[in-house]
Amino acid sequence: MTYPVTIADWKRSQGSEDPLSRLLALLESLDPADPAWISVASASHIRNQWLTILSLKEGGHDLPLFGVPFAAKDNIDEDATVIQILRRAGAVVVGKTNLDAFATGLVGTRSPYGAVPSAFDSRYVSGGSSSGSASVVARGLIPFALGTDTAGSGRVPAGLNNIVGLKPTHGAISARGIVPACRSLDCVSILALTIEDAREVFDVATSYDSKDSYSRLKILQPQFTAKIPRIAICDNPPWFGQNIQSQAYLQSLRQAEKLEWSLEPASFSLLFALADFLYEGPWVAERFLAIKSFITKPNVVIDPVVRAIIELATNFSAIDQFEYEYMKVDLIRAIEAQFDGYDAILVPTTPIFPTLEEVHKEPFLENSRLGTYTNFVNFMDWSALSIPAGFRSDGLPFGVTLISTRWQEEKLLQLGTQWLCTAERRLGATQSSSREREHPRRCEVQRSPLVVVGAHLSGLPLNFQLTEAGATLRCVAKTSPSYRLYDLLVGNNNIKKPGLKRVFENQEKGQSIEIEIWNISNKGLGDVLASVPPPLAIGSVEIADGTWMKGFVCEAWGLQNALDISSFGGWRSYIKSLSTTRESVLTDDTNMNSKPLF
Amino acid sequence: MTYPVTIADWKRSQGSEDPLSRLLALLESLDPADPAWISVASASHIRNQWLTILSLKEGGHDLPLFGVPFAAKDNIDEDATVIQILRRAGAVVVGKTNLDAFATGLVGTRSPYGAVPSAFDSRYVSGGSSSGSASVVARGLIPFALGTDTAGSGRVPAGLNNIVGLKPTHGAISARGIVPACRSLDCVSILALTIEDAREVFDVATSYDSKDSYSRLKILQPQFTAKIPRIAICDNPPWFGQNIQSQAYLQSLRQAEKLEWSLEPASFSLLFALADFLYEGPWVAERFLAIKSFITKPNVVIDPVVRAIIELATNFSAIDQFEYEYMKVDLIRAIEAQFDGYDAILVPTTPIFPTLEEVHKEPFLENSRLGTYTNFVNFMDWSALSIPAGFRSDGLPFGVTLISTRWQEEKLLQLGTQWLCTAERRLGATQSSSREREHPRRCEVQRSPLVVVGAHLSGLPLNFQLTEAGATLRCVAKTSPSYRLYDLLVGNNNIKKPGLKRVFENQEKGQSIEIEIWNISNKGLGDVLASVPPPLAIGSVEIADGTWMKGFVCEAWGLQNALDISSFGGWRSYIKSLSTTRESVLTDDTNMNSKPLF
Repeated sequence: MTYPVTIADWKRSQGSEDPLSRLLALLESLDPADPAWISVASASHIRNQWLTILSLKEGGHDLPLFGVPFAAKDNIDEDATVIQILRRAGAVVVGKTNLDAFATGLVGTRSPYGAVPSAFDSRYVSGGSSSGSASVVARGLIPFALGTDTAGSGRVPAGLNNIVGLKPTHGAISARGIVPACRSLDCVSILALTIEDAREVFDVATSYDSKDSYSRLKILQPQFTAKIPRIAICDNPPWFGQNIQSQAYLQSLRQAEKLEWSLEPASFSLLFALADFLYEGPWVAERFLAIKSFITKPNVVIDPVVRAIIELATNFSAIDQFEYEYMKVDLIRAIEAQFDGYDAILVPTTPIFPTLEEVHKEPFLENSRLGTYTNFVNFMDWSALSIPAGFRSDGLPFGVTLISTRWQEEKLLQLGTQWLCTAERRLGATQSSSREREHPRRCEVQRSPLVVVGAHLSGLPLNFQLTEAGATLRCVAKTSPSYRLYDLLVGNNNIKKPGLKRVFENQEKGQSIEIEIWNISNKGLGDVLASVPPPLAIGSVEIADGTWMKGFVCEAWGLQNALDISSFGGWRSYIKSLSTTRESVLTDDTNMNSKPLF
Repeated sequence: MTYPVTIADWKRSQGSEDPLSRLLALLESLDPADPAWISVASASHIRNQWLTILSLKEGGHDLPLFGVPFAAKDNIDEDATVIQILRRAGAVVVGKTNLDAFATGLVGTRSPYGAVPSAFDSRYVSGGSSSGSASVVARGLIPFALGTDTAGSGRVPAGLNNIVGLKPTHGAISARGIVPACRSLDCVSILALTIEDAREVFDVATSYDSKDSYSRLKILQPQFTAKIPRIAICDNPPWFGQNIQSQAYLQSLRQAEKLEWSLEPASFSLLFALADFLYEGPWVAERFLAIKSFITKPNVVIDPVVRAIIELATNFSAIDQFEYEYMKVDLIRAIEAQFDGYDAILVPTTPIFPTLEEVHKEPFLENSRLGTYTNFVNFMDWSALSIPAGFRSDGLPFGVTLISTRWQEEKLLQLGTQWLCTAERRLGATQSSSREREHPRRCEVQRSPLVVVGAHLSGLPLNFQLTEAGATLRCVAKTSPSYRLYDLLVGNNNIKKPGLKRVFENQEKGQSIEIEIWNISNKGLGDVLASVPPPLAIGSVEIADGTWMKGFVCEAWGLQNALDISSFGGWRSYIKSLSTTRESVLTDDTNMNSKPLF
């Protein structure tokens, strides 16, 4: 039996077969002795998940990942927020994957469950620490997997296995339920065969979690429109003697040139200095803390390399910690100044591709070399995307990573798509191949109806303004799928107000928002408009059928600190939810600077 | 000779006398033996500053603090960014003030230069650590002074001296050139006699400083409009036996009730738990680091209380530090959830008002009690404003502090103004009195005028829509300096259209745009609106005088590929220029729309 390869394949084929039987058959096909797995789900666990998904479906829930199987790195608990979110979106966990112990390593060999080899050549490492997740995705066993990324763990194994690895902004995806490595740096990462799939999982998984103190509200970015992206590359990249790797890199740069990206060599000395901090500095104390109760037990078996690293933690004082913190903050400012003006940084995902034997001989050295281009990203609070970039002359895959500041995932995914949409490529180590696709949108105008989005909806506090102006309800409808809805968080007269935002084409994911369409005279329209406060305005809104009508919109400045509530589908559902689960929706984010009132 | 008291007084009287002579006379009047001063400026230093200010004036610079004298706490270097900014705004430094050594203390007694007594009764403490700054302002020697605030140092002495103390958001005012106490918490604070003065200094001093790694871009907040502010107060405030202080507090709450604020008792246990962290936890390592090279010298003289506190730093490991950091982050989230929905928290600035003798007897205890309501604010990354709130039955002043989240300075200043604008009060310990005035900047939506920006301007192609709708031209005007104007580059019916964009404060530079204001009926408004195509809308526009009127705005998505033509000052000038130098204007600038993100 063969199975769909990508998420898109799984979704397309969902109608044609009994999804549960297929999932169970898939489960049967997985080999528990495969070192990439630490455990695979039981059939009954799959059945239970399936029943929950069916009941969600009957309840009318949107299930963008309906019946799509996935795996999670073993340091992600089954009840972690991110797994719960994916399951609520219809995805099914089929197993937990191997990793460098305590997510401490970039090699994929430091595990009591055995080393995970490269999906391409078993003499070579898979990279880590999300070794198993990368391996099962690369081999097409499942379409996507979750990893974690503290210093490169989500990108290195993606690069070494010809797949996509997205390291999101810290706090973008909830880390509740993840065994921490360094809590202040840990990210849940996404490993997938295509960029399209990585985007889909990222869009679903990104959600503010009031139960994770490091969770952050997503900050929307301006549309990325640069016709000629300015891309910084390392002016003097270290290869540690691996010429075959550097050849693959030079080869890959031709693709950037074909795309007419402006590649600009820059000194990486500040970035490398920052990367050194992670290994030299007191942050290892976070790793120690994460497993303190375990590592301090007598006779406990821990990989000696991992133990040696983590026990360094005890060498540092709080004074050292602050001293490093200040140096870090200063260095970060200098780096931000240096790379201000670039659209992204392009690096080889790894400068080396070691064999298992090489890592065995030089466990620290090879590991730290693997992190050359990844460590600093987490420290900078940046986002990064590792993508396949061809093959070396020996047939092993080569990856490059696109790096930008925080909350730049969508831009990185767009750049990655540009890179990968010009030709078909082999997906991971599978026999499938595909080419990334890009997507479209447009506009036109109509008259007299008025689209109502928020407090003017029937039954809500400002609806009287419509009825007093002689307006009548025409129908309940939805916008075109090009909008997002925000709670403006300004409690004018205790009446909460939403802002409807048309998304920037190709940059943000829009959706259809529930609306009412009222009929209103021009006089009535003027009456209503006279009482509309800034940042709200009456402009034009695109309806689901593609027509445009007058309706409530919002100026950009008003959305700056607003809360994205699009997931509720409409203002009415959101308002309802507030009365039940007030705090989970309204809790502020310390890292965000931006919540207006308490 | 008498001198002006407030900044407003100084500015008003500036024309009537020779400013330099008066400044020199003021300098003469200052007593270098006054324990509030560590040093006063030399006459030649004043003269030099004055010459610079004059040359700035001749250069046409805006000098909002022209000739206004001020003092700075001695831990603020003369070349600190904030002092440079104030001097460039026309202010003149006349001296450096006494402080608790290394800004470590809230008492004002821990100084090798001697204790600073209360400006009201020399048996009592001034509070600290910005003791001298509070004292010289309270006594009317100068209209404002800079302090610093790491755990309350800017609020406690304000509260004990009947003046205003503003502790801004961390990073709002550059800390470059300040001898740090805890760099991750230190703020420059403002001590002034009135809220109006504090606002003026804050508005001038707030500026992003690329040379201070902790500096932050200001984040604009929505207008504060709550008619009945929801204010949390402590449900069980500790007074440590000082009934006279608690009486003053209860008395002060009557003012809040008069204002019809909604006072809601809330448990402060989480806030107090967080405050304890600062004393118990490893943050003292920051203080150690700040003076490491000094404190580790043999035979150096340091106040024994200060030394004892700071040497605690060596007890903490980096592991402890991260452990506390995680607890802190979790606690902060819980606190934010608890106080979500309040407009502010109102607390007594201090629960006690100790004598010098009491502090001498119990140096640690009295100090820590003074910080009861201040410590947690810095940890939360919040802003706070201490204001005078009457006098105790023994004639000593009593202060309350308004607290809110980060970047809420303007809201706090507004609430403070509400509190203080109902009656005259004595300013500090001076013989002057005054009443706060409401700040004129308000968001008020007026009815009939319509702001016209583009093709509807008189004489331009769509102006007929206004005249057909019965509108009449009221005046030609300008927007507030918070806008940019774009050519949308969409030639609907060959009629070019502009988009007016309100800028994100401190992220973009706005300017005033030429407009016309038309009078129009609501019916006419509806008629016009019906023919406005997307992305244009009718919303609200801020006029140069600070009022808001209905007018043409533009949704964000419509500005994506638009051409910034703000430099023309208005649509009419732009259109004129097109007929003469058409191609030079229309050449698109790739860097323009999309300053990306690094």
